[in-house]
Amino acid sequence: MNIVCLVFIFFVFLPIQCYSLTVSSRGEVWPLPQQVTWFNASRGLRGKDGIVFNPVEPTTWENCQILQDVYKHYISKKYIYSYGIGKEFVAQPEILKVNIKINKPCPGDDVYPQQGMNEQYFLTVRNDEDARIEADEIWGVIRGIETLSQLIYVEDGYYYIKAVTIYDYPRFPVRGFLLDTGRHFLAPSVIMRQIDLAAQNKLNLFHWHIVDNEAFPYTSDVFPNLSIGAFSPRHRYSKSNIQEILKFARMLGIRVMIEFDTPGHVASWKGQPGFLAKCKPGAIPSIMNPTIDDNYKFLTELLKEVVSLFPEKYLFLGGDESVFWYNDCWKFDPEIVAYMKKYNFNVTALEALHVSKVSHIVDEISKEHTRLYWQDSFIKYNPDDKAVIGVWTPHAGKKWQPVMKQIAQKGHKVVLYACWYLNYIAYRDDWIKPGKNGQGDFETPWYDCDPHEFGATEEEKTLVLGGVASMWGELVDGANVEDRLWPRASAVAERLWSDKASTSSSEAARPRLLEHTCRMIGRGFRAQPANGASFCPVDVGMAL
Amino acid sequence: MNIVCLVFIFFVFLPIQCYSLTVSSRGEVWPLPQQVTWFNASRGLRGKDGIVFNPVEPTTWENCQILQDVYKHYISKKYIYSYGIGKEFVAQPEILKVNIKINKPCPGDDVYPQQGMNEQYFLTVRNDEDARIEADEIWGVIRGIETLSQLIYVEDGYYYIKAVTIYDYPRFPVRGFLLDTGRHFLAPSVIMRQIDLAAQNKLNLFHWHIVDNEAFPYTSDVFPNLSIGAFSPRHRYSKSNIQEILKFARMLGIRVMIEFDTPGHVASWKGQPGFLAKCKPGAIPSIMNPTIDDNYKFLTELLKEVVSLFPEKYLFLGGDESVFWYNDCWKFDPEIVAYMKKYNFNVTALEALHVSKVSHIVDEISKEHTRLYWQDSFIKYNPDDKAVIGVWTPHAGKKWQPVMKQIAQKGHKVVLYACWYLNYIAYRDDWIKPGKNGQGDFETPWYDCDPHEFGATEEEKTLVLGGVASMWGELVDGANVEDRLWPRASAVAERLWSDKASTSSSEAARPRLLEHTCRMIGRGFRAQPANGASFCPVDVGMAL
Repeated sequence: MNIVCLVFIFFVFLPIQCYSLTVSSRGEVWPLPQQVTWFNASRGLRGKDGIVFNPVEPTTWENCQILQDVYKHYISKKYIYSYGIGKEFVAQPEILKVNIKINKPCPGDDVYPQQGMNEQYFLTVRNDEDARIEADEIWGVIRGIETLSQLIYVEDGYYYIKAVTIYDYPRFPVRGFLLDTGRHFLAPSVIMRQIDLAAQNKLNLFHWHIVDNEAFPYTSDVFPNLSIGAFSPRHRYSKSNIQEILKFARMLGIRVMIEFDTPGHVASWKGQPGFLAKCKPGAIPSIMNPTIDDNYKFLTELLKEVVSLFPEKYLFLGGDESVFWYNDCWKFDPEIVAYMKKYNFNVTALEALHVSKVSHIVDEISKEHTRLYWQDSFIKYNPDDKAVIGVWTPHAGKKWQPVMKQIAQKGHKVVLYACWYLNYIAYRDDWIKPGKNGQGDFETPWYDCDPHEFGATEEEKTLVLGGVASMWGELVDGANVEDRLWPRASAVAERLWSDKASTSSSEAARPRLLEHTCRMIGRGFRAQPANGASFCPVDVGMAL
Repeated sequence: MNIVCLVFIFFVFLPIQCYSLTVSSRGEVWPLPQQVTWFNASRGLRGKDGIVFNPVEPTTWENCQILQDVYKHYISKKYIYSYGIGKEFVAQPEILKVNIKINKPCPGDDVYPQQGMNEQYFLTVRNDEDARIEADEIWGVIRGIETLSQLIYVEDGYYYIKAVTIYDYPRFPVRGFLLDTGRHFLAPSVIMRQIDLAAQNKLNLFHWHIVDNEAFPYTSDVFPNLSIGAFSPRHRYSKSNIQEILKFARMLGIRVMIEFDTPGHVASWKGQPGFLAKCKPGAIPSIMNPTIDDNYKFLTELLKEVVSLFPEKYLFLGGDESVFWYNDCWKFDPEIVAYMKKYNFNVTALEALHVSKVSHIVDEISKEHTRLYWQDSFIKYNPDDKAVIGVWTPHAGKKWQPVMKQIAQKGHKVVLYACWYLNYIAYRDDWIKPGKNGQGDFETPWYDCDPHEFGATEEEKTLVLGGVASMWGELVDGANVEDRLWPRASAVAERLWSDKASTSSSEAARPRLLEHTCRMIGRGFRAQPANGASFCPVDVGMAL
């Protein structure tokens, strides 16, 4: 590796930043598979039509529509051979057949990936025989196809695929990314590009923070008036937009978990009369009035609609940051003040009561759904025994660790968000280089944060479902979401998929992350440089 | 303006970040023109074919090819009517004719914009008569056409143009942006997009930092071996690439100032035998050997070629940061050590001697060229009386001010870079919100930095040519350069074009900057959100 030092004169002293001119690996896999045996050999590929998929018993094209869709997606989008600069390999006339076997029946169109989805797969590529991908479920095959595509590389203008045997499965069942369409609208096409990229990184969950104070782009059939909270009539997700997103995500084994956040962050819900608490003059009403029964009837109907539209059984119900509207609203609205006095509730207890009510609503609607909340109410109270908790704060240092411990000790399943607020940015290779100034300057780089690292007992470890990389939308829209997410979220994806011990060295990961970045670029996406100076076989905008 | 407060929990205290939900202006201009009289009226436009350009004496289509090209560019790329969501305006059947008059003859194909280019223009749009753009030179007309296009807006689905009289001219003659193709390759198409955007912001100079330690993408006919310093044979700019860029930039009134940086930052010049100084083991040779006559013969031939390829008469010759290789190379290479001893030079004097030699070379090659250098050698010495100096450091606070003063006091013309290192990023509306942590966290936000503000005398002010917004390439490539530059560089563009007093309020600028950002997006570019929550008539990826 060619170490180049770049230097910035600063005040009167000279801090020296050393960047490596990273050289890309070739035909390696991101995130790193659990078990890999390299055969120290590669097989030449004929070229553009050098690979075919071949379902083998009990799988057939006929009984597995989703496999057809995935195949078409990978072949038509050239996700196999993404650089597109290889030549026909006349010395290798044979087409590589990839036998694909799925042990369980393929899911019908209405079956979506859910918690517990089985993503493990076996993959072999040998010089002298058909390649093979085998998995219990289609979701594993999808991961295996991505891995297969990553084994392909170009040398001297020819395509090769590495000979290998892989047995692979994720370390954590929940590996997500969060997009926030409440602060800036993200066009459905932009969202689907991120879902596509998520699958290329073996993430499996899209946490869709769909509404917030600033906008309500969700379109409700039951409460159409809520759409006055959208930025404009054009800045809304129609039912067909959502269904298209859901279908696309399913095809790539990505769950779509929707969030409707209450009681706070609801300023844009102004289309529902009486929903918002009254607030001090000058304060924008941003929290609901939890003392009115009609508001819970409204929530019931809204959530019924949501649950019928989204097949995902994890339902995120928010519950964060109510504290910011305690004084301006809950302690100001006479009705709420009287309620608290009457029942001897304080504001935090009122918040917990709200969470409890919402949980009961969901419980009424569906016994199949898992309720998720941000940590806030669960620090002091425990308004829902069965809830899964998203730990999102604090971001600084490793101070999220005692919060994880506290939540796990109460017996809750938990998902870690706090380490991975990717909307925060700093001028540095932040997937691995730590900062020290707090916000935007995480002391724990993305790649180093481990969700088990909170002094967890073995039992508590089993409660840790995984993590989510968040891209909050205050300063992010369709213009910059893609390059700001990738490959920074790739670092998170490897942490959540791969074995910790095998991926402890960021130096070892660097050439592989560069190859992966180049792969995403070669596939037509905008993944930004993860490190200092580097180049890809095909950089953005380069003609082939 | 709807003020929304977003809050981040941090450690145990709660700093509150207030973002405005900015509402866009309509039909306003960025950067703000010098003199504007609004007629408080708008004129309806028929629709897609609602505007035609009409050259008037002495200008004709025949005697002004560049005007034809600009017209085609604006019309074919829909830069007029960029949102594309307006309907045919049947109530307004008349086509708006824009009479265009250029007082001086249009330049031939081989005439490029240069220092002293005249960019002033008059523009009138009235309800009852033809619109008019008049300028002394084509460069003013190009600026006027951009302004005209910005006066158009959509209301209730119809296009309107604001009635107005504008007299406009830039405050500073040098208003640039720097791209660095030495750390990451930028495809010619990516570079041309930035040039296009620069013109939309009335910048007029592209400072092309084409080579650096990491790569030498310039292709020399005279010294083809230099190309071994490119990242790969595909990561090079051919002569025709460069000519295409030059031609495109000229059409939009953008100068292309090339930089070949010596004596340091030359590790990639390894294709020229004997050019690099010998360095300590472990150090990468990154500085030239200034004691060898052949190296100056080489530089002479190289610069001859460069000068014949690039029509721009400003030639940037680098000269920064040699200090980083003093100890490892210049004080290590026995030949250089002996030279310094023999002539009683120390390293800083040797550096100044080098600058002096390079200046003499350029002087020999051309009497028409202006030499530019980074400030480094000129702090202590004055190796070239006629050089224009780029002040690039320090970035922190207003500490660049004494450096500007020092350089101006020596009588040098000066261009300010230090305020606008846009490669540095932070999580904030950094065009206007200050930071306090140094790098990536500028105390002076882009919009507030004024190149005259260094206790300059009136005479010293005349030496300040303007400024350049830099996008150094360590962490930037074709994936993220566009959204990282815009609209952050737009803030710089307004500071350099517009009257200071009229643009002192960032709050007043905010709705206009949002409109301008949306305009760039509507034109198919990726300008990121400048502020908090917001939306555009057409956001990235939205279907029309």
